[in-house]
Amino acid sequence: MSGSPTDVEPLDVLGVGNALLDVLSPTPDEFLDRHGLVKGSMALIDAQQATSLYEEMGPATEQSGGSAANTVVGVASLGGASAFIGRVRDDTLGDVFAHDIRAAGVRFDTTPATAGQPTGRCLILVTPDAERTLNTFLGAAAELRVDDVTASLVEAAAVIYLEGYLFDQPDAKEAFRHAAAAAHRAGRQVALSLSDTFCVERHRMDFLALVEHDVDLLFGNDGELCALYEVERLGDALDLTRRHCPVAAITLGADGSLVVSPEGVAEIPVHPVPGGVVDTTGAGDLYAAGFLYGFTHGQEPGACGRLGAVAASEVISHLGARPERSLAEFAASLGS
Amino acid sequence: MSGSPTDVEPLDVLGVGNALLDVLSPTPDEFLDRHGLVKGSMALIDAQQATSLYEEMGPATEQSGGSAANTVVGVASLGGASAFIGRVRDDTLGDVFAHDIRAAGVRFDTTPATAGQPTGRCLILVTPDAERTLNTFLGAAAELRVDDVTASLVEAAAVIYLEGYLFDQPDAKEAFRHAAAAAHRAGRQVALSLSDTFCVERHRMDFLALVEHDVDLLFGNDGELCALYEVERLGDALDLTRRHCPVAAITLGADGSLVVSPEGVAEIPVHPVPGGVVDTTGAGDLYAAGFLYGFTHGQEPGACGRLGAVAASEVISHLGARPERSLAEFAASLGS
Repeated sequence: MSGSPTDVEPLDVLGVGNALLDVLSPTPDEFLDRHGLVKGSMALIDAQQATSLYEEMGPATEQSGGSAANTVVGVASLGGASAFIGRVRDDTLGDVFAHDIRAAGVRFDTTPATAGQPTGRCLILVTPDAERTLNTFLGAAAELRVDDVTASLVEAAAVIYLEGYLFDQPDAKEAFRHAAAAAHRAGRQVALSLSDTFCVERHRMDFLALVEHDVDLLFGNDGELCALYEVERLGDALDLTRRHCPVAAITLGADGSLVVSPEGVAEIPVHPVPGGVVDTTGAGDLYAAGFLYGFTHGQEPGACGRLGAVAASEVISHLGARPERSLAEFAASLGS
Repeated sequence: MSGSPTDVEPLDVLGVGNALLDVLSPTPDEFLDRHGLVKGSMALIDAQQATSLYEEMGPATEQSGGSAANTVVGVASLGGASAFIGRVRDDTLGDVFAHDIRAAGVRFDTTPATAGQPTGRCLILVTPDAERTLNTFLGAAAELRVDDVTASLVEAAAVIYLEGYLFDQPDAKEAFRHAAAAAHRAGRQVALSLSDTFCVERHRMDFLALVEHDVDLLFGNDGELCALYEVERLGDALDLTRRHCPVAAITLGADGSLVVSPEGVAEIPVHPVPGGVVDTTGAGDLYAAGFLYGFTHGQEPGACGRLGAVAASEVISHLGARPERSLAEFAASLGS
């Protein structure tokens, strides 16, 4: 870890994750079947697979993405102070990622790689049911190292938010553990997103150790939580979660979310999307953004969940995982 | 001109224009005022201006664009056979442009430049009134040459559609004139889009000569047509148009369009957008797409205008100038 502790303003949330450009394309279900892709999940692909899948995809839209990056952009859009740590390359897509996250008001200082893989991208197939299927070529994002996790940023942030997808890279996982330890030494809180069922299955023991010892605030969906504890019933998974994590926010898709805290379990309905759901990409990331904004602004757990639902409802009303309008104004217009 | 006439299937429309990536960003009106930008118009900017404007813009979405390119993508989405001629560089954005237009079903064979300026881009500021303000760095698009206009494509297309924006580059203008002459020699029809009021003012005499002698089908809006003839009343401009052009389709924004033909003037209302207009980028381009599809499929002028209105209504319902769903299915669902 490195740091220049003098120049950092207090932060609400510091996100650590994969810096990715999203390549979003509306796609028929038949395309997933033909390519053996599992709807709703994230698959890691290499450069060659990315090229061949892209060639077969339809016309696309490019937009900055990355799970934790989307979350800290959401926090900033709600009016919070946030920063991001993640690796791009010094190439066109890296410039786009850096421009977008800074223009959204997020502090982003990670030095771009000057050699090695190009900036990572996520090929996102959006089926007519608004579900998204992710195919990620990590590229430069996989080169995140312990040294990239600036101590001064970790110490300045009320919550450090870590993306489970990072567990797919040994060095990034190491950076992740160091960040969690540094946050706790500084009296800060550690939040973790489980990210994806298959990701949890690939790294179950590592996730369990982290959740049992280091996580103050856990995000995931029902499938991911059941995979973590290898149980079939969500209730059993929730009972196990409560033994280790002070607070957990579990999303249930169209059924809303559950917020587990020492006060009990609050059921939060989804916030309606008047024009219909267009693309669920970023739904969990923006739910976490709303929750974290509330959490770092003294709101009680149920209110945090409701703000999460509001933020998620904006991002699923259009293509792409970044908000298209000020979430602070949107929430205010709803009285949230 | 060059050509290998043996391998070209018959085409409905061949578009010739600027190959550009759009960089779309929702922007407050105040930003336009501060930068002295004229709302609704297109300004040409150089590489340095593009860099400094981009730095000040908010988070953006990247999507393939270019006026004539959008039109031929619309023709393909309606089920027509179309091709495009325009220049990109062999860089990341050039690869994206080529992928998107081919994935949309449009033939695109123009060899990318291997040196010189990077692929062109258009920085598009979308204000809350859904109006778009364009700032174009032409880059490699400006290097279009006579040799790029493949004779076999011109001869294969029922209509060649030329984008007025090309008139800003002398070599491209020359390519444009050659293409029109070749089309007429092959018994094909020539369509021209006036593109932008300021563009018309910059090249008025050249446009007039082309409209009087070479254009079979003219596209423009009321402001552009009045600028072409230097008259204040649209009725006067229409009278002058009818002396030279067999058919003209003049868009009037929210007031719909007028289709001028030997049969008279048909007034076409706009097609409603149930969720409200989000971004007018591409409205004129997609109107032209619907019109040209009808025109090349034996429809009478009023029906062509109505199909134009339907295609435009899809593209203004979301961010970006390319259709997000099959226009053939959309039109069929409306009984168009």
